[in-house]
Amino acid sequence: MNNTDTICAIATAQGGAIGVIRVSGPEAILITSSIFTPISGQSLDERKPYTLTFGKILSSEGEIIDEVLVSVFRAPHSYTGEDSTEISCHGSSYILQQVMRRLIECGCRLAEPGEYTQRAFLNGKMDLSQAEAVADVIASSSAATHRLAMNQMRGGFSQELSALRDKLLHLTSLMELELDFSDHEELEFADRSELSQIANEIEQVIRRLAQSFSVGNAIKNGVPVAIIGETNAGKSTLLNALLNEEKAIVSDIHGTTRDVIEDTINFCGITFRFIDTAGIRQTTDVVESIGIERTFQKMSQADIVLWMIDSDSEVDMEGLKDEILPHCEDKNLIILFNKSDKVSTERCDTLRQVFAEVDAPKLFLSAKQRQGMEELEALLVETAALPEISQNDVIVTNIRHYEALVRALESIHRVQDGLLMNLSGDFVSQDLRECLSHLAEIVGGAFDVEDVLGNIFRHFCIGK
Amino acid sequence: MNNTDTICAIATAQGGAIGVIRVSGPEAILITSSIFTPISGQSLDERKPYTLTFGKILSSEGEIIDEVLVSVFRAPHSYTGEDSTEISCHGSSYILQQVMRRLIECGCRLAEPGEYTQRAFLNGKMDLSQAEAVADVIASSSAATHRLAMNQMRGGFSQELSALRDKLLHLTSLMELELDFSDHEELEFADRSELSQIANEIEQVIRRLAQSFSVGNAIKNGVPVAIIGETNAGKSTLLNALLNEEKAIVSDIHGTTRDVIEDTINFCGITFRFIDTAGIRQTTDVVESIGIERTFQKMSQADIVLWMIDSDSEVDMEGLKDEILPHCEDKNLIILFNKSDKVSTERCDTLRQVFAEVDAPKLFLSAKQRQGMEELEALLVETAALPEISQNDVIVTNIRHYEALVRALESIHRVQDGLLMNLSGDFVSQDLRECLSHLAEIVGGAFDVEDVLGNIFRHFCIGK
Repeated sequence: MNNTDTICAIATAQGGAIGVIRVSGPEAILITSSIFTPISGQSLDERKPYTLTFGKILSSEGEIIDEVLVSVFRAPHSYTGEDSTEISCHGSSYILQQVMRRLIECGCRLAEPGEYTQRAFLNGKMDLSQAEAVADVIASSSAATHRLAMNQMRGGFSQELSALRDKLLHLTSLMELELDFSDHEELEFADRSELSQIANEIEQVIRRLAQSFSVGNAIKNGVPVAIIGETNAGKSTLLNALLNEEKAIVSDIHGTTRDVIEDTINFCGITFRFIDTAGIRQTTDVVESIGIERTFQKMSQADIVLWMIDSDSEVDMEGLKDEILPHCEDKNLIILFNKSDKVSTERCDTLRQVFAEVDAPKLFLSAKQRQGMEELEALLVETAALPEISQNDVIVTNIRHYEALVRALESIHRVQDGLLMNLSGDFVSQDLRECLSHLAEIVGGAFDVEDVLGNIFRHFCIGK
Repeated sequence: MNNTDTICAIATAQGGAIGVIRVSGPEAILITSSIFTPISGQSLDERKPYTLTFGKILSSEGEIIDEVLVSVFRAPHSYTGEDSTEISCHGSSYILQQVMRRLIECGCRLAEPGEYTQRAFLNGKMDLSQAEAVADVIASSSAATHRLAMNQMRGGFSQELSALRDKLLHLTSLMELELDFSDHEELEFADRSELSQIANEIEQVIRRLAQSFSVGNAIKNGVPVAIIGETNAGKSTLLNALLNEEKAIVSDIHGTTRDVIEDTINFCGITFRFIDTAGIRQTTDVVESIGIERTFQKMSQADIVLWMIDSDSEVDMEGLKDEILPHCEDKNLIILFNKSDKVSTERCDTLRQVFAEVDAPKLFLSAKQRQGMEELEALLVETAALPEISQNDVIVTNIRHYEALVRALESIHRVQDGLLMNLSGDFVSQDLRECLSHLAEIVGGAFDVEDVLGNIFRHFCIGK
């Protein structure tokens, strides 16, 4: 990608009344001018920024492709920070394609995916975490995902990181001072316990951010729910019943990083992501291990496990319990007695007794008859127990950010250890720099020695 | 619909980077202002028309829904002719819905389909035929459909009708003068042959326009092609082969008036619409009539008939010819000998001889093996023989316009007859007024007596 090219792209989906083409780059206004004739008044390049001009776009043969409105923006006051135009056409894919062709004939290049936002980042209009949030804002499909993405796009996360960075720079500066001037006995340095105190504060913030990812990920990608059970327990029927009862399907949205499209359902503003598991097969009374290993693997990704039991089955419940329960220890287990419409009250009582000592909510339902579905939905919402998010909460939703935070956390732990063990400042400084560099990855910047030195001489000028 | 309401609608399709919401009506700027906070500078209602303002849209709880660009237009210089705004948001359906909700909370009403264009029509920004063309422009999917729709939207058809109206008014005025002042022997009137001359000119224009519909309709909805033949002749295989070979499928586009979605294929810029016909079944050598009546009915809608013959079939060809050929007299018939890969050269010669006297292009092909498909496509394009359309050609594409033109043609024919038969001016005037009124339907106006009188006194002031 070349930042000096002028790029163009259709920015709206196909099929509306209006279609918008974006042009950005040094020649954006010139190229748009060359295919555009205003109906009256000034030509585009004479127009002030943040104005609209009505006119027509002509083909190279002089035929009218469309009557359009063109917005003009000038560097640096545009989304990309470059000269830009937006051409608002009638929403015909034919017209949009023809206008694109003209732009390309006149010197534009077709934009790469995300190139507008990339340019905004490269031109300092936003940092990397904000740029990533743009895709999340566009993909946001619920109040919670929207809040998190909007806060991140508007720099909420960046501010938190910036405060963290300042603290780290402060600590680094103190360490560097100790190193550089340790010969000067007349100078006093912060003692190690004071440094430890600062390191602890930093560790707390990074830990809180890293831990917020489990909530952020559940909000963004859905609370992972595994439905497990015997092959004929009615797992697919339950999933279909849930999908049919859904309030809103979270659709397949580009810009998200999900690899596999799983069934997701939104209840009361909470998205649940259902993980497909293989059925557990039984022959006579013996639990067969076919599929069960895979099921346990999948279960490990789940926050909530729905264990479906065929109420009418002759299966060895004790055997199943022994197999399944050990894998549910850190999960939110919900036990569903399916096909409850087919069994007697006595049978229900028996099942209750068998599972009496299992500490989990239990529900009798019939997925096929859609009985008990509302209770199940309410139970899922209650079990998910996602905190109420406000637009000011900084919650990590991006796995790249999470991974960088985990690495930063490891670095700061080494810093804490180093300070406690009274290691040489050299070692501690190295870990501090690593911690800074991991945080810098998130916003796409780089904190180098200059940063540290700059900080020293700005805050700690010692009269030289 | 109430023209004093302020309406709002999402004008872009779901799924792009940008989503645009349109607001129009007396309170458009006020309502948009009330949910919008500019990042800096003037509030929306202080902004000049044709300017853009960057700012944020807040929810009623004060949370940021989005950062947006708002365009401001003031009556009458807007699409609808009313005060309007366009809000350019991030293309998240969640955000767009939230912004719509805010607008409605603050007094907007959800727009009905086409209501923006309807308002443009009601406010005199365009006539009815232009308004109809807006939908066609948006639905246009090829150079030809785009040209026709663009010309109509820009008033090409309206101008033609306006010239026609002037001629008709002129003729009516002459007739009225004859009626009103026939007592005044000192005044001279145009003689009947002169009037006939004018009526003939008018008839020619209306006839040309009405006749253009067959081309216009073929361009807009596709050239209708019927594939007929015995049940096992390979009609579906051919259709699938054509669909697979397609250069572009003309997709199902809203705003067009097609009731049934038929398979359409675009070759060399010409759209072909394939009409489904029932197979003609044969038992032994007797052509059975099961399905054949329906097939003949469907055939009547076709411009081009592809008669598929199973080259390898033992069928009574003479019998088939007797049945089918009489129904093909006013059609462009193409005879396809299918499964030609399965038969000998001698068999091909025999088939050629059997069909020697049938005046139609003949092609040996194998739909299954995709042999001869390119030749068939070329033959279809050649047979369709659609004229090259320029953006200045006035061609009727709308069946409502066509029907109004047919009625206008009938009226002008009665005028011509009346003039030839020297009927009383009263009768002739009545038909002229009918003709005017049918043409007026097209543009959505009404030519009433005032028009005629106005025209008289403008052009024929006789000193009173």
